[in-house]
Amino acid sequence: MSVDTDITQVVGARLVQLKRIDSENGSLVVGELPMQLPFVTRRIFTLFDIPEGEVRGTHAHRQCEQFLICMTGSVSAIVDDGAHKAEVLLDDPALGLYMPALTWGTQYKYSADAVLLVLASDPYDADDYIHEYDEFVALALQR
Amino acid sequence: MSVDTDITQVVGARLVQLKRIDSENGSLVVGELPMQLPFVTRRIFTLFDIPEGEVRGTHAHRQCEQFLICMTGSVSAIVDDGAHKAEVLLDDPALGLYMPALTWGTQYKYSADAVLLVLASDPYDADDYIHEYDEFVALALQR
Repeated sequence: MSVDTDITQVVGARLVQLKRIDSENGSLVVGELPMQLPFVTRRIFTLFDIPEGEVRGTHAHRQCEQFLICMTGSVSAIVDDGAHKAEVLLDDPALGLYMPALTWGTQYKYSADAVLLVLASDPYDADDYIHEYDEFVALALQR
Repeated sequence: MSVDTDITQVVGARLVQLKRIDSENGSLVVGELPMQLPFVTRRIFTLFDIPEGEVRGTHAHRQCEQFLICMTGSVSAIVDDGAHKAEVLLDDPALGLYMPALTWGTQYKYSADAVLLVLASDPYDADDYIHEYDEFVALALQR
């Protein structure tokens, strides 16, 4: 399966343009339900000081939805629905990446200054993770 | 009314230590309901490129609760319940500032690289804002 840049081929995944307001008083980016944020956030996590060459993610969730925003710096994200795979560059605090449940997500090429915020629809649950790619594909292709 | 650094004197406001995990693969900070995040997030906003000397906030909300995290750089935040006022420095992505409804919030002394994330419990509603300090104090002292 090849990786392309057309995220519209990946079931449910999408890039979301947040509202950005620039003024002489500074810059403001806003996202809210239901326009920009597709779910209510019950957990957040932030990744930073990621070493060069590090690859993170490489799992999927059974139920949990996620929304990624690179607050500063840049990171590349691959989203994979089991049949199609796309890579996008997150390098703008006004750009969100929505990953529905049953998306295999990989994040890599973190810049030294990258700060990646992830909003999640659910609290942590170890049983919600799918770590085996073959198991993921079998589940994803059933949907 | 003097400003001090004892946030415990300000009704409902508090600093929240998020869970931080440092490893050779990078740093991860996590906050989730109900331990660290006191409400479900329905809106986020991000402030950056704030000019030196800029003062932001200086309003309160009737219902909306907020949770502030400075993702990079630093910013000073004043929380005021109408009777007590405290100033805290937000300079750590693992440190959250919870501001309940009816808190007069002011943010200033943004460092040039500051990126301030605000999680909000409610979508935007112009009627939820209190812009007049006297009106805020009258409401706050009734609670």
